[in-house]
Amino acid sequence: MRGSFKKIGLVGRNRQRGLTGVLRQLLPLLQERQLNVVLQESLGDKLPDVDLPRASLEEIGEQVDLVIVLGGDGSLLSAARTLARYSVPVLGINRGRLGFLTDITPDDIAQQIPRVLDGEYEEDSRFLLSAEVHRDGAVIGSGDALNDVVVNSGSSAQMIEFELYINDIFVYRQRADGLILSTPTGSTAYSLSGGGPIMHPSLDAIVLVPMFPHALSSRPIVVDGNSEIRLDVLARNRIHPPVTCDGQTNLKARPGDSVFVRKTPHQLSLLHPRGRDFYTSCRDKLRWSNQLVN
Amino acid sequence: MRGSFKKIGLVGRNRQRGLTGVLRQLLPLLQERQLNVVLQESLGDKLPDVDLPRASLEEIGEQVDLVIVLGGDGSLLSAARTLARYSVPVLGINRGRLGFLTDITPDDIAQQIPRVLDGEYEEDSRFLLSAEVHRDGAVIGSGDALNDVVVNSGSSAQMIEFELYINDIFVYRQRADGLILSTPTGSTAYSLSGGGPIMHPSLDAIVLVPMFPHALSSRPIVVDGNSEIRLDVLARNRIHPPVTCDGQTNLKARPGDSVFVRKTPHQLSLLHPRGRDFYTSCRDKLRWSNQLVN
Amino acid sequence: MRGSFKKIGLVGRNRQRGLTGVLRQLLPLLQERQLNVVLQESLGDKLPDVDLPRASLEEIGEQVDLVIVLGGDGSLLSAARTLARYSVPVLGINRGRLGFLTDITPDDIAQQIPRVLDGEYEEDSRFLLSAEVHRDGAVIGSGDALNDVVVNSGSSAQMIEFELYINDIFVYRQRADGLILSTPTGSTAYSLSGGGPIMHPSLDAIVLVPMFPHALSSRPIVVDGNSEIRLDVLARNRIHPPVTCDGQTNLKARPGDSVFVRKTPHQLSLLHPRGRDFYTSCRDKLRWSNQLVN
Amino acid sequence: MRGSFKKIGLVGRNRQRGLTGVLRQLLPLLQERQLNVVLQESLGDKLPDVDLPRASLEEIGEQVDLVIVLGGDGSLLSAARTLARYSVPVLGINRGRLGFLTDITPDDIAQQIPRVLDGEYEEDSRFLLSAEVHRDGAVIGSGDALNDVVVNSGSSAQMIEFELYINDIFVYRQRADGLILSTPTGSTAYSLSGGGPIMHPSLDAIVLVPMFPHALSSRPIVVDGNSEIRLDVLARNRIHPPVTCDGQTNLKARPGDSVFVRKTPHQLSLLHPRGRDFYTSCRDKLRWSNQLVN
Repeated sequence: MRGSFKKIGLVGRNRQRGLTGVLRQLLPLLQERQLNVVLQESLGDKLPDVDLPRASLEEIGEQVDLVIVLGGDGSLLSAARTLARYSVPVLGINRGRLGFLTDITPDDIAQQIPRVLDGEYEEDSRFLLSAEVHRDGAVIGSGDALNDVVVNSGSSAQMIEFELYINDIFVYRQRADGLILSTPTGSTAYSLSGGGPIMHPSLDAIVLVPMFPHALSSRPIVVDGNSEIRLDVLARNRIHPPVTCDGQTNLKARPGDSVFVRKTPHQLSLLHPRGRDFYTSCRDKLRWSNQLVN
Repeated sequence: MRGSFKKIGLVGRNRQRGLTGVLRQLLPLLQERQLNVVLQESLGDKLPDVDLPRASLEEIGEQVDLVIVLGGDGSLLSAARTLARYSVPVLGINRGRLGFLTDITPDDIAQQIPRVLDGEYEEDSRFLLSAEVHRDGAVIGSGDALNDVVVNSGSSAQMIEFELYINDIFVYRQRADGLILSTPTGSTAYSLSGGGPIMHPSLDAIVLVPMFPHALSSRPIVVDGNSEIRLDVLARNRIHPPVTCDGQTNLKARPGDSVFVRKTPHQLSLLHPRGRDFYTSCRDKLRWSNQLVN
Repeated sequence: MRGSFKKIGLVGRNRQRGLTGVLRQLLPLLQERQLNVVLQESLGDKLPDVDLPRASLEEIGEQVDLVIVLGGDGSLLSAARTLARYSVPVLGINRGRLGFLTDITPDDIAQQIPRVLDGEYEEDSRFLLSAEVHRDGAVIGSGDALNDVVVNSGSSAQMIEFELYINDIFVYRQRADGLILSTPTGSTAYSLSGGGPIMHPSLDAIVLVPMFPHALSSRPIVVDGNSEIRLDVLARNRIHPPVTCDGQTNLKARPGDSVFVRKTPHQLSLLHPRGRDFYTSCRDKLRWSNQLVN
Repeated sequence: MRGSFKKIGLVGRNRQRGLTGVLRQLLPLLQERQLNVVLQESLGDKLPDVDLPRASLEEIGEQVDLVIVLGGDGSLLSAARTLARYSVPVLGINRGRLGFLTDITPDDIAQQIPRVLDGEYEEDSRFLLSAEVHRDGAVIGSGDALNDVVVNSGSSAQMIEFELYINDIFVYRQRADGLILSTPTGSTAYSLSGGGPIMHPSLDAIVLVPMFPHALSSRPIVVDGNSEIRLDVLARNRIHPPVTCDGQTNLKARPGDSVFVRKTPHQLSLLHPRGRDFYTSCRDKLRWSNQLVN
């Protein structure tokens, strides 16, 4: 258990609707405890009347001992890729219905935030993946992902042809729309739409999900979280496959390049209200209670 | 049964390897029967020493009473989209291993071609789909497909949000990478990689396969072949979704556009050597004989 | 459109809870129109104070011009297998939430039943499958199914090995837990859980869904509704595979037997309140509106 | 690395064809090295002319320092459940084509066996699952599995309704044909047919694959290998669900019982010829090299 939180960073995006209301609910709870609060600059003019210091996400990562991300899972993903480097714990408040990562709703703020500040929380460690594009022996670009790295053809009329290696062992040569490489955190997002399994967040594993594979017997493969995965883009491809991290296109590979994917050295520390477990989120989000026929 | 074939068109692409050998095998079989032969211009300089008339694909469609396509399933798909308009029967010779559409291999030529010319063949009728993009009430582009029409986001970092209507009845609003609309002919191609069912070629049906759908309960839907399918690209999309026909990008829709997909008025007449049935192709191509464990 | 209904049969099962309430709502609506009402004997003592004629399901099928089935989709399936022979239209009232077949809820009775009696309904024709077990050239048992015929190993520790023929054409030899053969009506039931596609009820097609097939490239196959399907239980099996129709075990095959599945000559006429279409049921029942992540 | 092997146990089943030939190939290789050889009694009269000691599988487990299993993956699974308790390494020779567990073919014997005896092998540790049926607080039966534990309805016309708990945390209430709980070793067997992911053998994880689940959003779940999984068979079931271990029916639960599944304390030590890796087996067995279309 961590010591008590003294300096709190509030992180979010200005263009998101509903954020002002969430901020107005949250601030008094922090101020009545005499906590120092820093606002991310990107919150812009959400609270023009409030006199609080502003800082970049990196500065917040360095200075505070708790970050509260306001927005949806997308906002948290985005902030987490930066914050993981600073070992600062992160808590997410959703604007509307629950997310897998942001599991406090506006209706829960009054009850759950004081409890978290009193130390009533669970702490999860989530690893990230880094993707590096190698060309002629040099790293020409890289990115981090909390959910998933996706390498695909980038074009709706083309397939990508690649060879896959795990810890330098040849797995297969594949023609497909692409390949998803997902953490347990990402296993309930894009990977799941593509037929990947749900992986408990505590699992130290990576899942590789082929996208529309040519070979019908290709299936998702789960490997140890410490594996080094290499995808060789065959020289005979005529496409330049984009490499996306959490759905953001950071990188573009060329025929002949290799994409390396492995764990980053830092992990994200994610807080949850006590009693909120992963399977509750699954039941909520995936509607497991819904039955097909009566 | 058709009358005997008198004028034969040979169709193929110059850049394909192995085509000259196939041509040298095939020509004597046609010439010893005093058949008129026309070569597609795109065969280029494959047979520089042979004095035969050359014509465009359209002219061949008008003039001959049998077209033999040399190449793979891709070559046949491409020729078929044009030839279907001319009601001319089409036979496919593959350069290597069997295709679903081109089911004569080079090794079979000597035996199968004379038999087909003697009337020993099966004739299949295959329908095509047309895709039209409508904007502000006007058709701004269209294309035909023997296999499938695919509407997707065109970007690896984005989803498309659309509404689906079948015969003007609302089906669902969906967020997904895209939607595949496949004929029975296409049901063993891209649609199958995406989890669609195999449909017997004689079936008068279209299958709609959602690509990485957000809603986990979305499944392939099979509807009558005469259905009119409309996909409304919601105005709030920020992407311009390409519409591909048999993997060729012909069209680009914009937010607010509608894509209409329905049968074309003409059908392709596809010939097969007698005794070659659809399930034999499936066993060959899909390796149904292979068993998982012993 | 049919003429007006004069004699109504009410069908249901005594052991179902909530049926008395539904009956008490329904009866006055029928009686105020001076309609003749017959109760199925199996409704037992549900309405001890009501003096109405009782009859078997077969007698009801012969005598009335509309049958209202009270219960869930299971009750309707069961009644429909018998009633299809009598060409009498069938309407279903569910006790709780909507079914695919019984699409009037108790809350809708007061509004929808008078409208249906006034002719405000849609009429669907649904075909049934018959399954026959053949041994040494003789039919040793048969059953009908509105949803599906399932042939499986009947044992959790065994597979069944069979050969599949469609219209006497060999499809494959397969080792699997079994095979589901489903009508469009059944395509939203067990077949869907097994990865089969949704088929619009108007489609004249049968889907074959392999259950846990040994060959990973085995996929659901959709064939014409008039196909004759034959499953040969290989002589070397050591199990006696049960053949179930709509989940009822009617039949048991032995190694060496053949199971024939084809359409029955009669179809079920199923009524729906006007405006209730298939895709609305799908959205309700399959929660298509639910989205995975926010 | 282990010391050199001095006493070898040969294990197999008498009724398997082809075993005598394999034995006649293998024995001289062992005898020329003056190794002590013990035959399992169940090999029966396979080698009537050979004077070698016979023993039960348990005695072999106690006495030898290497067991060679002759047969297919099924034979190895069966022997492994007993041998795991004795910490003796196990090597498998297949009679025909390769298995995932028995990865020496008859053609490889002359080359690979001497190399393995020289220490040229890889050693894999594979965990097993134990399944216990609890009734009124007492264990009423148990079994071990190297591949998988399956709890299902045992009847082709019924579903089982159960609640799932992982480490005492509620996961869901489900109606389904059953649930597969598989080790990484079993992930390429039955679990794979049911849509489960492939898991690398080194992964410390268990996958839970629902069989024909009623809720369409149910997916395979991968959890830590040290999880305790509990499946409560709801009291309102009318079936007595069998619990199978590696496809053998050992146990039968009743409504109200709980089935506990967790790792056994002992692991199986599985030997492979050097250079034979898991992905090579996948490519061979799953035909990953086969491509759908050309």
